[in-house]
Amino acid sequence: MNIQLTPIAYVKNTRKEVKDDDWSSIISEIELADNIIAESLEGITEFSHLQVIFYMDKVLDEKAIAQYRHPRNDTTLPKLGTYAQRNKNRPNKLGLTTVELLERKPRSLIVKNLDAIDGTPVLDIKPVMLEFAPKGIIRQPAWTKVIMKNYWT
Amino acid sequence: MNIQLTPIAYVKNTRKEVKDDDWSSIISEIELADNIIAESLEGITEFSHLQVIFYMDKVLDEKAIAQYRHPRNDTTLPKLGTYAQRNKNRPNKLGLTTVELLERKPRSLIVKNLDAIDGTPVLDIKPVMLEFAPKGIIRQPAWTKVIMKNYWT
Repeated sequence: MNIQLTPIAYVKNTRKEVKDDDWSSIISEIELADNIIAESLEGITEFSHLQVIFYMDKVLDEKAIAQYRHPRNDTTLPKLGTYAQRNKNRPNKLGLTTVELLERKPRSLIVKNLDAIDGTPVLDIKPVMLEFAPKGIIRQPAWTKVIMKNYWT
Repeated sequence: MNIQLTPIAYVKNTRKEVKDDDWSSIISEIELADNIIAESLEGITEFSHLQVIFYMDKVLDEKAIAQYRHPRNDTTLPKLGTYAQRNKNRPNKLGLTTVELLERKPRSLIVKNLDAIDGTPVLDIKPVMLEFAPKGIIRQPAWTKVIMKNYWT
């Protein structure tokens, strides 16, 4: 089964090259594609946060496969499958991040904490609702702290 | 720009037809596609929750467009853009839900709170990390309560 998708928007920001860390200072503009009506953003400012699904088009095809490896190739960390990690080298090259909505312009959104580089195609935007938050207590392994140490600096 | 994706897994459950509400009782199995290695799930049970991105292939193409309408066509609710809603009729037909991981089998995951019907193609699975949780206080409009009243029953 082949699934054909089309960008509904594009990311504009100052981060021009792929980098793993230091995303907190980046403010991004998500600009609607020409074929998407501006009214599709009506009511969005009633939400403080959005989930953004984007397509990491700079990932090489040969790296976009299911893997079993050390996160960031750090051998002090346990070997893990692709679906126990959030790293960008994965089948379908999808990124997913919860961002803070700062402002809506007629055909774009100004957001904080989007870890996507300039020009990245956006496939969907969904408002964060508490009804879709994780139910119950969240449990995660200790190695995530190592990986995420400088991510949001 | 056309983006070609391939399912990495498929949903198996007892929900055979599209329905808006009553998802809490549904337990789903997410079974890896044949070309995805089983080792891609290694380490996943250290996480309690997963984000699942799926392709709602039963949505008709003519409804998969950016819209400005009342949620669930309920005129007592405000008219809203597609990106201020989470409903299934949207460009690219992407669904996104945080599920609870109950069990890992060699090539599949047993999960709770996945609002996808039987046979739905899955495009990505990401572990929930607190570092990717919304930063700051979450604000959302009152109409979401009306919409979500019977969703997780």
